[in-house]
Amino acid sequence: MDSGRGVVKMIDQRQLPHRLTVVECDNYREVASAIREMTVRGAPAIGAAAGFGLALAARESTATTRPQLERDLAQAAEVLRATRPTAVNLGWALDRIMAKARAVEGTLEQVRAAVTTEAVRIADEDVEMNHAMARHGAALIQDGDTVLTHCNAGALATVDVGTALGVIIEAHRQGKRIHVFVDETRPRLQGARLTAWELMQAGVPMTLIADNAAGHFMRKGKVQCVIVGADRVTANGDVANKVGTYKLAVVAKENGVPFYSAVPSSTIDIKLPNGDAIPIEERDAREVTHIDGVPIAPEGVHVSNPAFDVTPNKYVTALITEHGVVRPPFDENLARIMGAGPS
Amino acid sequence: MDSGRGVVKMIDQRQLPHRLTVVECDNYREVASAIREMTVRGAPAIGAAAGFGLALAARESTATTRPQLERDLAQAAEVLRATRPTAVNLGWALDRIMAKARAVEGTLEQVRAAVTTEAVRIADEDVEMNHAMARHGAALIQDGDTVLTHCNAGALATVDVGTALGVIIEAHRQGKRIHVFVDETRPRLQGARLTAWELMQAGVPMTLIADNAAGHFMRKGKVQCVIVGADRVTANGDVANKVGTYKLAVVAKENGVPFYSAVPSSTIDIKLPNGDAIPIEERDAREVTHIDGVPIAPEGVHVSNPAFDVTPNKYVTALITEHGVVRPPFDENLARIMGAGPS
Repeated sequence: MDSGRGVVKMIDQRQLPHRLTVVECDNYREVASAIREMTVRGAPAIGAAAGFGLALAARESTATTRPQLERDLAQAAEVLRATRPTAVNLGWALDRIMAKARAVEGTLEQVRAAVTTEAVRIADEDVEMNHAMARHGAALIQDGDTVLTHCNAGALATVDVGTALGVIIEAHRQGKRIHVFVDETRPRLQGARLTAWELMQAGVPMTLIADNAAGHFMRKGKVQCVIVGADRVTANGDVANKVGTYKLAVVAKENGVPFYSAVPSSTIDIKLPNGDAIPIEERDAREVTHIDGVPIAPEGVHVSNPAFDVTPNKYVTALITEHGVVRPPFDENLARIMGAGPS
Repeated sequence: MDSGRGVVKMIDQRQLPHRLTVVECDNYREVASAIREMTVRGAPAIGAAAGFGLALAARESTATTRPQLERDLAQAAEVLRATRPTAVNLGWALDRIMAKARAVEGTLEQVRAAVTTEAVRIADEDVEMNHAMARHGAALIQDGDTVLTHCNAGALATVDVGTALGVIIEAHRQGKRIHVFVDETRPRLQGARLTAWELMQAGVPMTLIADNAAGHFMRKGKVQCVIVGADRVTANGDVANKVGTYKLAVVAKENGVPFYSAVPSSTIDIKLPNGDAIPIEERDAREVTHIDGVPIAPEGVHVSNPAFDVTPNKYVTALITEHGVVRPPFDENLARIMGAGPS
């Protein structure tokens, strides 16, 4: 966020890897659109973006009384919250900032400032958490390993560094000779478009594969571990993540390949007992039937396009958090770190 | 094949579902190209196409002696055989026709005629086998079932009717109210382009999904069985099929969903003990990095693109053959039907 000019800047992820374009949003509705249209995506990134959206809403509000300002903020928060249902970071960031705003004792300007301060704090904390996860997670990767990842959980999906990709790039930075299989991640191809691009930028040796090929390589013993991010992890360690993660986790377990999900505590929904209650976003059929405007299916075909799936905890070897690597029993061990962690 | 004009006609499957175009090949090298470039694809269809290719080679040959004609045919057979390595039908059809040609006692014209006759017989038998498989397999589908299929094992992949899709369409024709989930089948999208098109033509209710979503629907109890074709089945019941089949079969088993492969005996390689010896074709990176010429990944990205994978027999509930539904132990039961079946 550029506080001086009152705009939120974000890389337009829909244009990558062909063009690196920065989009500017100067009101919260534009931020909401950017989240909905996936100009910005990735659970931590949309949490941070929503926070900055609320900061813009605080500036935009012409309220002259405290109740009026709180109403304007609450309304903006609901618009931002309604953009995407699955990632918990969105609601988490909004709730955290709204609580802060309500708690301020002071002038309207002080409330507005508190909203911006908290949004900035959330973004800064995200970077810190990712650095901590990268350190903890890199220890799980051995010299010579091939790691498989799905979707994009890199710097683009977060404020910086990344979750799963932060871990992988840290292992590379430490001098471990690793190789990464990148699932292309249909339908939106975040693996092919974003993860491949980030890894190439970072100089990490990698191979792009169709999602369908991941099982073949696991069965052939070519993959030593799977590391993905998450959009929401529940109290029992169930992991909602990009659709296809569940298949990957089942096949990993079947082949004795450890399956890790890298999640900052902002992605852990400790209030939800298990993954069955996580809302799964159904997105536009056109994501499946068209690629860059090119039709790839018969006109009028019926499509179902769930954007996420839930991987039950029994397929999860460990969760990589900013507090360390959490292993089963997840209920107990997640409750412990969430009690200890930042609010 | 149009015997009068000496051309082999085939639907250009690369143009579907947008355009229904028929390609004519008037020499065996064009048939070889059509198989290599996947103008024609599907194990039984490429077996039949190779047979007709050999029939064209017999006509093209200017040989005036028997050894010369047999050399020309053998050379054409090797060109046709080298086009694609995984499907066994290709070699099976060529070997069968070559054996027939060698066994003919008569004039050169009689040898040439025998080659054409055998190619036609292979094509006719394929249709008969598919009808028989459709009848046997349809009994496995109950009224109200949702069936999931991967890739295209329909009329386009065979001479007519189809293997897996023949079974599914027969169940629909019998009046069972079924629904089909169609995996889009990256990278070449045969599900989105061909299977969706065939099912829509046949009026079978269907939903196109990204391959990644198949696990989500199985876990939710929305799929009652998986039916796919095969490119080669070994003596122990291991199934080589379009890449992604293995992941599907593992996840099906994990969810108690029966997994069936519909295979004519021409696809059963009884001489190969198990799937480890099946050559897996590696295809062009461009199938992953481009869609209809549009780039979807960073330039210069490293890609691996295996076209098939092997599903070990422990994930296979049953094989649907023209002789009936074959269940484990596959070694024993496949040996029995292959002994009984046509050569």
